[in-house]
Amino acid sequence: MQFEIKASDTSSSARKGLITTDHGSIETPAFMPVGTAGTVKAVHTRELRNDIKAQIILGNTYHLYLRPGLDILEKAGGLHKFNGWSGPILTDSGGYQVYSLSERRKFQHEGVVFHSHIDGSRHTFTPEVVVDIQRSIGADIMMAFDECTPYPCDYDYARKSMHMTHQWLNRCLGRFSETEPLYGYAQSMFPIVQGSVYRDLRQQSAEFIASQGADGNAIGGLSVGEPAEIMYEISELVCGILPKEKPRYLMGVGTPVNILEGIALGIDMFDCVMPTRNGRNGMIFTSKGIVNLRNVKWKDDFSPLDEDGTAYVDTDYSRAYVRHLFISGEMLGPMIASIHNLAFYQWLVREAREHIADGSFSAWKGRMVKQLAVRL
Amino acid sequence: MQFEIKASDTSSSARKGLITTDHGSIETPAFMPVGTAGTVKAVHTRELRNDIKAQIILGNTYHLYLRPGLDILEKAGGLHKFNGWSGPILTDSGGYQVYSLSERRKFQHEGVVFHSHIDGSRHTFTPEVVVDIQRSIGADIMMAFDECTPYPCDYDYARKSMHMTHQWLNRCLGRFSETEPLYGYAQSMFPIVQGSVYRDLRQQSAEFIASQGADGNAIGGLSVGEPAEIMYEISELVCGILPKEKPRYLMGVGTPVNILEGIALGIDMFDCVMPTRNGRNGMIFTSKGIVNLRNVKWKDDFSPLDEDGTAYVDTDYSRAYVRHLFISGEMLGPMIASIHNLAFYQWLVREAREHIADGSFSAWKGRMVKQLAVRL
Repeated sequence: MQFEIKASDTSSSARKGLITTDHGSIETPAFMPVGTAGTVKAVHTRELRNDIKAQIILGNTYHLYLRPGLDILEKAGGLHKFNGWSGPILTDSGGYQVYSLSERRKFQHEGVVFHSHIDGSRHTFTPEVVVDIQRSIGADIMMAFDECTPYPCDYDYARKSMHMTHQWLNRCLGRFSETEPLYGYAQSMFPIVQGSVYRDLRQQSAEFIASQGADGNAIGGLSVGEPAEIMYEISELVCGILPKEKPRYLMGVGTPVNILEGIALGIDMFDCVMPTRNGRNGMIFTSKGIVNLRNVKWKDDFSPLDEDGTAYVDTDYSRAYVRHLFISGEMLGPMIASIHNLAFYQWLVREAREHIADGSFSAWKGRMVKQLAVRL
Repeated sequence: MQFEIKASDTSSSARKGLITTDHGSIETPAFMPVGTAGTVKAVHTRELRNDIKAQIILGNTYHLYLRPGLDILEKAGGLHKFNGWSGPILTDSGGYQVYSLSERRKFQHEGVVFHSHIDGSRHTFTPEVVVDIQRSIGADIMMAFDECTPYPCDYDYARKSMHMTHQWLNRCLGRFSETEPLYGYAQSMFPIVQGSVYRDLRQQSAEFIASQGADGNAIGGLSVGEPAEIMYEISELVCGILPKEKPRYLMGVGTPVNILEGIALGIDMFDCVMPTRNGRNGMIFTSKGIVNLRNVKWKDDFSPLDEDGTAYVDTDYSRAYVRHLFISGEMLGPMIASIHNLAFYQWLVREAREHIADGSFSAWKGRMVKQLAVRL
């Protein structure tokens, strides 16, 4: 994996770059649609490529491990072959889902024992197991196994958890170096900074992570309920420590405004379920603000879904029609809103890249953060 | 509305024709995807046009009347403008849904009083109201208000109901002739033959309907649970009486085999929820037989969804992947199966038209009915 910085903003830490993987390139800042169980919900692979113009998607290790399972993924020749997405794929480590979804989980030093949320079956994730699973999935970018601490989290727990995450990283790197990719293309592994909201822990963790010389580095444990100002403060602290010449990935973030603020702090990669999850609930993001499509005010608004939108759904359908679909519980509503929101997020990072390149990022961002938060 | 017969089969009553409406032409035999509430479930309008290649879609009067309601449809300029489908649209009369969906309905001579399945609100459908609603929707082809008798149905009820349907037809035609289209293009109205499974009633009803000189004629009250042989027998009887030079529409039919048998009896138009409803449940129809995508036998079958299929979903996705989507409850599964099945039904009637034109329909049909019923 290569990373090249193409342009840097002079009045913020924003930068425009290019990640190159064996499955193609990713322009940064990048937003990665979340393809939980090997599918970005309600979106065809063709639409992801041609209409949304995603350059990389995410897969969830926990979900893919449980379904379809590693035997199927290996027989298919990896996730790319299985789901037909031929671009780069990043997989998380499963740590977050084990924490948030599984039943009767038990974190211990060795790893995590948990029961599947699907059938209650018992499984163990250790750092070594998680590396092996991501080899079977065949992600271009794998994530090290970590514990994502909740918010709020007391100092003592955060400190102990951070040390465990660091020890798990050593084991992940060991396993990573003693194993090979299964499908003939290269895989990278990103370590994850933890430390909750505590500046001293975050500094310590960022220094430890920075010292590993990985292809890229991630910031975890944010966007878990803390105020946005804390997320920005910690991101800024950590970005100042993580190596400049490697991509920085802020996990699970966020709203369009969060993304612009993150870019300004030097973040290169983002992922979030918000465009698809909120879309399925009838909320769309536009360059003029947020639209709740269920609102009665749209019932006879026959103007395009988003007159400034870049996807075909923005002109093929009116707000009144899409409101009708949501009110009637028709699947086409979530389908349309998911495509719109993902295309909007891609537009947002594409615009950010262009404004970084031409030196106008900070002025543009200042205007956008006001508009994006408006409730239409 | 014009109808022209282009070719007739010599060894059956099958014929190939062309219906021309102000929204474009429909090659017959035609299959009409059902767009219940102004949307063919789980399918984008773009896909309906470009991938499925539907030439006409159906709307349900009952559903559209309740949601979005006539005020919205009129403000939009009719259903075509509302949902963005620019081809021909046929609407049913609402009689079937009033019967099958609404609560506390009461059929009386004047019309039907019913309570909405959505909010319990009270409504009255009379023949006049139903014509007015279909004027507001702006269907190219409207259906007369009828009572669709259930199966089984005793003779006396069937006879009385048929007479009521005939009287309602007179009132529909009266209202139709004294009102005008609202949106500047022509609308036709098809009457419906009823009479349950009773040959004398069906003969009487078909003669009454044939005498009206309508642009096209429909056969209702079949495919409601009776054996397929009875459906074919009644269809044959009625087709022999309905005028040859007008299109014949067999309502709510059916399986791929039902459609081929209907074509052989002289039916020109079909509609059915089966391709979308069964698709959403994981059943797909192929030229080699029926596939239950949930079956464990597909779990590691990485061959295309349908190697003979004509839609992009047939080659973009494997059976193993689509099975995984259904097992995991992912929306993309129903989306893929709906597109596949609708494209398959369009392929089936397209092939039928070609075989009628080149004189090979009966031989081809004989081979197909065997293959289509196989369980793969």
